[in-house]
Amino acid sequence: MTSPAPVVLLFLDPDFPDGRVADASKPQLLVTDLGVTRGDGIFETMLAVGGSVRKMQAHLDRLAGSAGALDLAIPEQDVWRRAITAAVSRHRTENPPADPAADELVVKLVVTRGVEGAPAPTAWVQASPAGASGRRQRETGIDVIFLDRGYDSDVAERAPWLLLGAKTLSYAVNMAALRYAHKQGADDVIFLSSDGRVLEGPTSTVLLAHVKSDDGTPVKRLITPQLDSGILPGTSQGALFAAARAAGWELGYGPLEPQDLLDADAVWLISSVRLLAPVNTIDGKQIGTPAVQKELTAELSGLFAGIH
Amino acid sequence: MTSPAPVVLLFLDPDFPDGRVADASKPQLLVTDLGVTRGDGIFETMLAVGGSVRKMQAHLDRLAGSAGALDLAIPEQDVWRRAITAAVSRHRTENPPADPAADELVVKLVVTRGVEGAPAPTAWVQASPAGASGRRQRETGIDVIFLDRGYDSDVAERAPWLLLGAKTLSYAVNMAALRYAHKQGADDVIFLSSDGRVLEGPTSTVLLAHVKSDDGTPVKRLITPQLDSGILPGTSQGALFAAARAAGWELGYGPLEPQDLLDADAVWLISSVRLLAPVNTIDGKQIGTPAVQKELTAELSGLFAGIH
Repeated sequence: MTSPAPVVLLFLDPDFPDGRVADASKPQLLVTDLGVTRGDGIFETMLAVGGSVRKMQAHLDRLAGSAGALDLAIPEQDVWRRAITAAVSRHRTENPPADPAADELVVKLVVTRGVEGAPAPTAWVQASPAGASGRRQRETGIDVIFLDRGYDSDVAERAPWLLLGAKTLSYAVNMAALRYAHKQGADDVIFLSSDGRVLEGPTSTVLLAHVKSDDGTPVKRLITPQLDSGILPGTSQGALFAAARAAGWELGYGPLEPQDLLDADAVWLISSVRLLAPVNTIDGKQIGTPAVQKELTAELSGLFAGIH
Repeated sequence: MTSPAPVVLLFLDPDFPDGRVADASKPQLLVTDLGVTRGDGIFETMLAVGGSVRKMQAHLDRLAGSAGALDLAIPEQDVWRRAITAAVSRHRTENPPADPAADELVVKLVVTRGVEGAPAPTAWVQASPAGASGRRQRETGIDVIFLDRGYDSDVAERAPWLLLGAKTLSYAVNMAALRYAHKQGADDVIFLSSDGRVLEGPTSTVLLAHVKSDDGTPVKRLITPQLDSGILPGTSQGALFAAARAAGWELGYGPLEPQDLLDADAVWLISSVRLLAPVNTIDGKQIGTPAVQKELTAELSGLFAGIH
């Protein structure tokens, strides 16, 4: 019998400047919390490596953007920073990392609207060990399928109530898409818009690379779908692009179509916890060549590992 | 200072045949429950009038359908029935209804996927007094606006992972649409598909009536959007249609376009708790005439009140 992974939980509470410690193994939420009854809230998932949280500012900024989209008044960034630091530090004190190569904590920030009529949202930080499956997929790569997201690529702009740029707790469709993929024997999904554009993964951003330009001359070009197609702005994509530019890569932004991925020298799904997961196949079709993929993955993973 | 409305809470638990009573004013859910972290679960909202739950079988059937769409193994209907009956009975014993004309309880059924790797979903029944605003809107009617739902009317069939026929906990978009309407001074929303079809309200089904046929002869015709456009099958619409047919009404199913609503003699949003809410205006345009609307609302509300 394995004991459950240890979770450190801190509620943001004006009476506790560094967060109010709570027992994550005990119930902490009312059943009438709108976070559960309506999926009405927002979140961020970050990775702490060796006790240091990666891209904290980008996550806090995106959380603030999501809060704006949902009209949620959330705590100030300094309050979050203190609670995040306290949660990570407490987790490492209580559970000293056994294996330095796997010293990774997942740090989640969650805000729900609280119960109907609540004076303030319910907000917490939780820290828990990163699972092994994400680390494994960075190495082995993943098989993905294309799935229709149902929205056209213009809808985000004309219909802000669809919350397409916000990271909400209403992730049932993302979870259903992943279950659908698993039933097909795939590991993950790349969503397409109803007008055939490449969007994003259910919990990741799509990247592709070319190592040759159209006339055959060597190039290093990293491309991601353009943001105004209603996808979530990827904090990992943003950080990697900055690092890649500094390392001499050309950067490009969609529109992208499925064939662009099939023609790429390498494709990845990038996210904050799993990091760069190389895509081996899409809909059963091999992407690029294993040797080039491996080399590019090593180079970009190195660049990505260096960001803060 | 008003005390919060009394809530009776019963968890479905194999060890408690009539449900395990819990204190709804105390935390009962883990912060790691996928119901809150992913909006990954399903629900139903029913109305009990005078202690009798309306349309219980239709709600249990729809809950089972939602569970199927989300691959959730939920308790048998008999288990739900016992817990529902126990919750309503306990609520009425603990809080004897003061005003027989307002003896209405909202009964919610909720199922979440539980925590990651949980052997069974988390499932509960809660009973609480119906709010006054729903009852008021039945009388006064509502002003609504059209909003784009972003999906085309064919998507439900081609993309089951979008869960369009399931009543999931991921309701953030529905809540955002209502907030958007309230900011415009409206009470509610009618969603349109991206190809211009009338779909549904965020928490209701759309109905329209005609009292004259195209050639001017009197008729009583009740119309609702067709189900295969990706809307939730309305238990209230279904029950009212059956009652209206028995009372001599003609029934019709869409496709409907916005102009069909603007040209109707009356339009309603129908749902299980608010019941029939007459739509006074859509995007500021008056629907039908007050006299006809009032008469039809009275007739249909009478039919609807008679269903079980």
